[in-house]
Amino acid sequence: MDSLRQQLDSYRYLVLAEGHFGPETSKTANSAIRYLPDRVLGVVDARHAGKTVADVLGFGGGIPVVASVDEGLRLGPTALLIGIAPQGGRLPHEWRPVLHTAIGAGLHLVSGLHFHLGDDGDLASTAAAHGVRIHDLRRPPAGLPVSAGRARAVEALSVLTVGTDCNIGKMTAALQMRDALRRRGSRVGFAATGQTGILIEGWGIAVDAVVADFIGGAAETLVLQAAEGNEIVLVEGQGSIVHPGYSGVTLGLLHGSMPDAMILCHAPGRRCPYGGGGVNSWMPLPSVPETIRLYESLIAPLRPSSVIAISLNTWDLTDEEARAAIARTEAETGLPVTDPVRYDPGVLVDAILAARDEKLEERAVTGTRR
Amino acid sequence: MDSLRQQLDSYRYLVLAEGHFGPETSKTANSAIRYLPDRVLGVVDARHAGKTVADVLGFGGGIPVVASVDEGLRLGPTALLIGIAPQGGRLPHEWRPVLHTAIGAGLHLVSGLHFHLGDDGDLASTAAAHGVRIHDLRRPPAGLPVSAGRARAVEALSVLTVGTDCNIGKMTAALQMRDALRRRGSRVGFAATGQTGILIEGWGIAVDAVVADFIGGAAETLVLQAAEGNEIVLVEGQGSIVHPGYSGVTLGLLHGSMPDAMILCHAPGRRCPYGGGGVNSWMPLPSVPETIRLYESLIAPLRPSSVIAISLNTWDLTDEEARAAIARTEAETGLPVTDPVRYDPGVLVDAILAARDEKLEERAVTGTRR
Repeated sequence: MDSLRQQLDSYRYLVLAEGHFGPETSKTANSAIRYLPDRVLGVVDARHAGKTVADVLGFGGGIPVVASVDEGLRLGPTALLIGIAPQGGRLPHEWRPVLHTAIGAGLHLVSGLHFHLGDDGDLASTAAAHGVRIHDLRRPPAGLPVSAGRARAVEALSVLTVGTDCNIGKMTAALQMRDALRRRGSRVGFAATGQTGILIEGWGIAVDAVVADFIGGAAETLVLQAAEGNEIVLVEGQGSIVHPGYSGVTLGLLHGSMPDAMILCHAPGRRCPYGGGGVNSWMPLPSVPETIRLYESLIAPLRPSSVIAISLNTWDLTDEEARAAIARTEAETGLPVTDPVRYDPGVLVDAILAARDEKLEERAVTGTRR
Repeated sequence: MDSLRQQLDSYRYLVLAEGHFGPETSKTANSAIRYLPDRVLGVVDARHAGKTVADVLGFGGGIPVVASVDEGLRLGPTALLIGIAPQGGRLPHEWRPVLHTAIGAGLHLVSGLHFHLGDDGDLASTAAAHGVRIHDLRRPPAGLPVSAGRARAVEALSVLTVGTDCNIGKMTAALQMRDALRRRGSRVGFAATGQTGILIEGWGIAVDAVVADFIGGAAETLVLQAAEGNEIVLVEGQGSIVHPGYSGVTLGLLHGSMPDAMILCHAPGRRCPYGGGGVNSWMPLPSVPETIRLYESLIAPLRPSSVIAISLNTWDLTDEEARAAIARTEAETGLPVTDPVRYDPGVLVDAILAARDEKLEERAVTGTRR
């Protein structure tokens, strides 16, 4: 894994987000911009060519948006990052010539698509001929176990971010908390469970890409590894427990990671489960308290665990609206609430540190809990 | 699919269950014996060589158990069925020479392992040289969608068997109900979701073998297809909603199949989730009423649906104990209960037909429900 991390850490990215660059539609691109800002040199989306990233996203500063990969080459990138994760994960047909252009210019390819670029004979042989690497971040490792609750025994406090929906900020919340915990001096491991988390962290397993029987086993493996030498493990959540398309991944991740505690992520403006073309608009999302009840009742038969705080995603609200949403959610749940991107993540970090202290005390009293 | 079905229907099986043949440890073998009795010629397990299948299982009549594939060849089989599904689904190393013996004798191979025999270069080339086919029943089809509740709109009544645990009789219950419904003249489709169901039915998708993001999409695809020309669809359940290893598959299947109703399968003697070597013995199973509550609360945000009857698996109880367990479960839940293998499945079938009539009436009143 050091090798993958070292390779990824060395890359300077041109990010391909053609036709999709925007606050809600280019998850991988946006997270690379937020967490690897010094290594993103430009974004490709002809619709926004000439603007800056900040013009489109509201953050990200003066990184330029360019009209094509060809144009982006003058920025001096060493790798092309596939910056969107279309539902179903397939390679849009019109990207093929674009990828060949990038390979021809000597750029390594980094992709989080379900479709593995390295399995495409044409791309693989062209890449080999040009001496460039193809990184398929979603390719699962071999030999995963079936999970059996092994992660419940880690000494570190494990915290899973769960959500009222997919694409709602579970990874971002976890990364904001990771950084804030490290600023307070905590030893924190981050278990990346999706392609973007792996891109940022340099290791992990995309749990939505493993064979279904091994979702939990992948999560268990990640938690055991992330706990080594750390006192807190933050597990990146996926999907939601009621999402018509992705709930299986969510529950496998919950039962495989066996978290001591959960942080619920929610976007106050979200009405229906996220899906291309409004495909899930027939279904209203359950309320925050009802969603908390569902997560807690599903982990209860395996271990005691509860939602200890709520992370809101308020990017589309005014400051006044955001503060009102936080106050309303606090009143509704009695839990600490904030938007850890917009405001200080302090109250979330406080909740995690309190849970860690409680676990330490309990272990001191009862010995190693099984 | 007709082609797969026709091929499977033509086979006369020798069933490999070496070291595992028994009532609880050789699921695929036992179901082949129950549902394809005329086409199972013998079972290989040296531990029980010389006995009959009925001696070992308590059903299955005089089918012989033999000591080796070599010995079984004299029974005249045309295919070797891998009769067990080890946790993790890998090919036990010591089977390799046995499979070569079978291929050398001209037997086709039928396997439900996660590991695809056809991907093993050595086995594949030997099979090709001997003109025998390898059927990997767990190989998923390409191009599955992400589920989005499409199955909720089928006209047929859809019924999913759910369980308090894995390996508890969800497929068997569904097949017993299928046969009983057909005897009453109903047009019933069976959506096979596991390797054994596919073996028996001749088509289906092993939902535990698809890439995790597509569990629900596989279930949705199956229900839409099984509903064609039928008034009832029985969906074979998988795992359980609280199984540490398999719950993700279970929830993806629930949300992808969007059943009108559920039948809960339970084994009164089961105390902990099933797993090799008692790996899950740290966890007590929740009660039947609590399990019903979990399933109903997880489907509720997507559609109204409830558990309408309970199917018990009482193979390890005396007749008196079985009748007591049925009475106790009826009292505990207020639902119709029986063991559809041991006794007449009538009460389960009555519950399904009543739900079908209710759905027909509702559609007549409201028009096509979306």
